[in-house]
Amino acid sequence: MPETIHIIKIGGKVAENEETLAHFLDEFHAFEGNKILVHGGGVMASTMSRKLGLEPKMIEGRRVTDRETLDVATMVYAGLINKNVVAKLQARGQNAIGVTGADLNLISSKKRNPEPIDFGWVGDIENVNGDWFKALVEQGVVPVVAPLTHDGKGHLLNTNADSMAAHLASELAGKSSVELTFCFEQPGVMKEGEVVPYLSTGLYNQFKEDKVVTDGMIPKLDLGFYALSSGVKQVRIKQFSDLNNHSTGTLLTQ
Amino acid sequence: MPETIHIIKIGGKVAENEETLAHFLDEFHAFEGNKILVHGGGVMASTMSRKLGLEPKMIEGRRVTDRETLDVATMVYAGLINKNVVAKLQARGQNAIGVTGADLNLISSKKRNPEPIDFGWVGDIENVNGDWFKALVEQGVVPVVAPLTHDGKGHLLNTNADSMAAHLASELAGKSSVELTFCFEQPGVMKEGEVVPYLSTGLYNQFKEDKVVTDGMIPKLDLGFYALSSGVKQVRIKQFSDLNNHSTGTLLTQ
Repeated sequence: MPETIHIIKIGGKVAENEETLAHFLDEFHAFEGNKILVHGGGVMASTMSRKLGLEPKMIEGRRVTDRETLDVATMVYAGLINKNVVAKLQARGQNAIGVTGADLNLISSKKRNPEPIDFGWVGDIENVNGDWFKALVEQGVVPVVAPLTHDGKGHLLNTNADSMAAHLASELAGKSSVELTFCFEQPGVMKEGEVVPYLSTGLYNQFKEDKVVTDGMIPKLDLGFYALSSGVKQVRIKQFSDLNNHSTGTLLTQ
Repeated sequence: MPETIHIIKIGGKVAENEETLAHFLDEFHAFEGNKILVHGGGVMASTMSRKLGLEPKMIEGRRVTDRETLDVATMVYAGLINKNVVAKLQARGQNAIGVTGADLNLISSKKRNPEPIDFGWVGDIENVNGDWFKALVEQGVVPVVAPLTHDGKGHLLNTNADSMAAHLASELAGKSSVELTFCFEQPGVMKEGEVVPYLSTGLYNQFKEDKVVTDGMIPKLDLGFYALSSGVKQVRIKQFSDLNNHSTGTLLTQ
């Protein structure tokens, strides 16, 4: 049985603050085993958009990506965040390579239908090239994945980072034992100020009905359950600073 | 004898115009053999700096790279230019991967001494990891190299693209047969409106004395002769649109 591949996703907020990023990367470096890092960067893209005189436009929490916004996303995600993370991992002695879905044709997608809402240059994932990811981790390299894919026609597409992590995990689950961890600022899925240690699909449906989980947490959990149903061995949602404490956070169960 | 590795460098001006870039990438895709693309992007970085309210500062034709300018260089070189080139190569059926020197620890450098001139976050190349480049090209992948290196301490460093191409060629010359081509807008080294077909070190010294070659052409030719003296089989300077006409341009000779 080959070694488990750990897919760890960090939200933009972790990557955007120098101190929290350093803290996270120490944790990530100490985390043992084959691993892939997927990062976001939305807040930093919004800041850069505003500096360039573009007002970010969101619909239902998702970014509307016109041509200029795609360029900003490409600069911030694939350039600023991605390459600084790679350089900081190298400084910790961790060989890493920063990639988008276009590199090695790793993750291709289809531009989202402009009906009913035109999100612009946004991609929905169609294919993940698991063999290349596997080959890299087996050579001791950490792929650092920026949330951009490509359509195979020469266009980059802005793509949700949670979705990239979940689809990558699902694809690799057909080839290896895979664990997926969504890291963010909170200690897990919260109910009345307490972490929910286990979340089944039944309880999740109840939580949605009772508005215990709302907004951005819903697509994240949907993706988590999708990964679980695709054969991913473990899906956990937890605090980025607590990566090496393996019993914390919220564990999804079927 | 393994197949020759072709290292092709394009200047920023080629990459910055959508039409010339498409023309060049058609030529590059048609170019047969193992190949590595190194690109610049200075003009686009200057444009982006100005949009962000930073006035580019040059000394002797080289960019002074303060912290904000390094961020712009990282965004434009490693993000905007690099990933669009990769997506456009994928669309042509050419598997490619966009990298900086930080990725896979491919090219490391030392921050330039601030005396006599403080160029800021600029790197002078110290080490090239030829084995990884070779492994990629042997798997049919084109590395697309952005002009950034890292210092191994977590910092990216702005690095001259000609220098990256020449050092990469020199390093690989110890492992393979290597040819280096500098592509730009002109048909080669020019004298009185005509291309100089062969340029020896003797003639080059004469040209410098007579001011036939000046400014940015001098460091480029110095790097070309350095590559030649390091065992690179062929160094040629030519027009980007003429890549597949193997007898054009200026051939450096010892």
